[in-house]
Amino acid sequence: LKYKNLVTDVDGVLTDGGFYYNTKGKVLKKFGPHDSDGFKILKSLGLSLQAISADKRGFPITEKRLNDMGIPISHVTEVDRFCWVENRFDLSKTIFVGDGYHDIKLLNECVLGIAPSNSPKIVKENANYVTDSCGGNGVILEIALYLENNL
Amino acid sequence: LKYKNLVTDVDGVLTDGGFYYNTKGKVLKKFGPHDSDGFKILKSLGLSLQAISADKRGFPITEKRLNDMGIPISHVTEVDRFCWVENRFDLSKTIFVGDGYHDIKLLNECVLGIAPSNSPKIVKENANYVTDSCGGNGVILEIALYLENNL
Amino acid sequence: LKYKNLVTDVDGVLTDGGFYYNTKGKVLKKFGPHDSDGFKILKSLGLSLQAISADKRGFPITEKRLNDMGIPISHVTEVDRFCWVENRFDLSKTIFVGDGYHDIKLLNECVLGIAPSNSPKIVKENANYVTDSCGGNGVILEIALYLENNL
Amino acid sequence: LKYKNLVTDVDGVLTDGGFYYNTKGKVLKKFGPHDSDGFKILKSLGLSLQAISADKRGFPITEKRLNDMGIPISHVTEVDRFCWVENRFDLSKTIFVGDGYHDIKLLNECVLGIAPSNSPKIVKENANYVTDSCGGNGVILEIALYLENNL
Repeated sequence: LKYKNLVTDVDGVLTDGGFYYNTKGKVLKKFGPHDSDGFKILKSLGLSLQAISADKRGFPITEKRLNDMGIPISHVTEVDRFCWVENRFDLSKTIFVGDGYHDIKLLNECVLGIAPSNSPKIVKENANYVTDSCGGNGVILEIALYLENNL
Repeated sequence: LKYKNLVTDVDGVLTDGGFYYNTKGKVLKKFGPHDSDGFKILKSLGLSLQAISADKRGFPITEKRLNDMGIPISHVTEVDRFCWVENRFDLSKTIFVGDGYHDIKLLNECVLGIAPSNSPKIVKENANYVTDSCGGNGVILEIALYLENNL
Repeated sequence: LKYKNLVTDVDGVLTDGGFYYNTKGKVLKKFGPHDSDGFKILKSLGLSLQAISADKRGFPITEKRLNDMGIPISHVTEVDRFCWVENRFDLSKTIFVGDGYHDIKLLNECVLGIAPSNSPKIVKENANYVTDSCGGNGVILEIALYLENNL
Repeated sequence: LKYKNLVTDVDGVLTDGGFYYNTKGKVLKKFGPHDSDGFKILKSLGLSLQAISADKRGFPITEKRLNDMGIPISHVTEVDRFCWVENRFDLSKTIFVGDGYHDIKLLNECVLGIAPSNSPKIVKENANYVTDSCGGNGVILEIALYLENNL
């Protein structure tokens, strides 16, 4: 198999990156359509899936959504991100999906780095594949259909 | 009458497909303008209306909105979707509106398959008519005005 | 004075027309920036302001926002809309702003009918002026600056 | 150093300018991705940071978010805005970021005035630099990366 694992960031990939604050802090995130369908296809292709998030304050929300979809999720700080992934996965067989400034190293070092279309320019310049979809609007399904034809 | 029934998916048609999570799960959906006006016109054209949704966790929210508009709504899983519609309606007289990967068979088999403009590419390729409107931004009104001139 | 009153719809003009549902019903509306600045300019130009809304379930939310901006607001059903405005204002001196299918008659009969850019096509075809701004993103400020130069 | 301070408006820069109302009033704001990364870079460039907001009703929400990012925030009315900044900072060394009609004087008088791409036309015409990013979608990161190459 060309690819073995897909590791994905959450905010900006499964959401548009925004978060809703009230006076108590971060209380809501908006997740998008089609990603659940996409994850099912990725699993059927034999890929191991892992989600990571640097957002500590919003982690219980993130966790709830990823649990609902049956995808393992870990809190990993931005600083630890690269080592955390490198220690657990063979980067030469790992697809990484991310939209953030601190995702650039992983996008470069993984065999396939993917960024949503609404990522900052500098992030997209460091990706192998920029999706047509925006974060929170079908990124994972687009990747799944792409891989179905390119494994 | 050329068409007898209109069956529509909810998420991605009457909404942009997103859902708002807090730590307890799915708590909010955003419904769009003009759909209530559209449904009234569709009824006046003599069409029977039915909404279906595969979203179980968010179903009480979906149900509340559709009840407020007076449109019958049923929870139908993605797997059962095709059979459920086929068992109840004559597909040769049924319009189907959907935006999801699992809607493709119904879009193909119903006499008129309609997808909102922001559906995934593969969904739009399987529709007879792609609306100018995005999901949650006037899809049903656009369909109603189209049918008014094309019945 | 060329114009005496400005009557505006709320949903789709001061918002993008969406509303947020939970299991209890309509609970949130998203209002946009710049409209408060716009209303202040309109007042300074000597225009009388009136907001109307056909949304009964969301009216307490609408009312709260318009009260916060100091703009009079009335609940007027879609059916009564035209008569309600005609009975209270001289249409030949009244600007009307609306985005809905049921706003078409008022857009035609008022001396200046204005529709936000994201209104349905049929609504825009019946307006004298279509703003560059989308509903909930500066429509009232755009109108105020336009009138400042065209009174 | 060419620039010493960066003063930024909040609504419309760190958010898209919208606010979510329920029947009690303003209850939620949506903050965007990448700004926290951007502020870290700006600090590392030696800039002093200050956020200001004219929104009194939503100030506790604004304050919570800015506190979470470690950025000082003050409530300053629109009328006082120019004097408040002028009294505290040397405008010839101050960058100002804003999207509002009442930000025009500061955009003109500060040595570098920056407006997000979705600001009203008249605001953008008074800025030295209009970002590619929309408010609430990476404005601060874009500015930080720009300054990194132009200090």
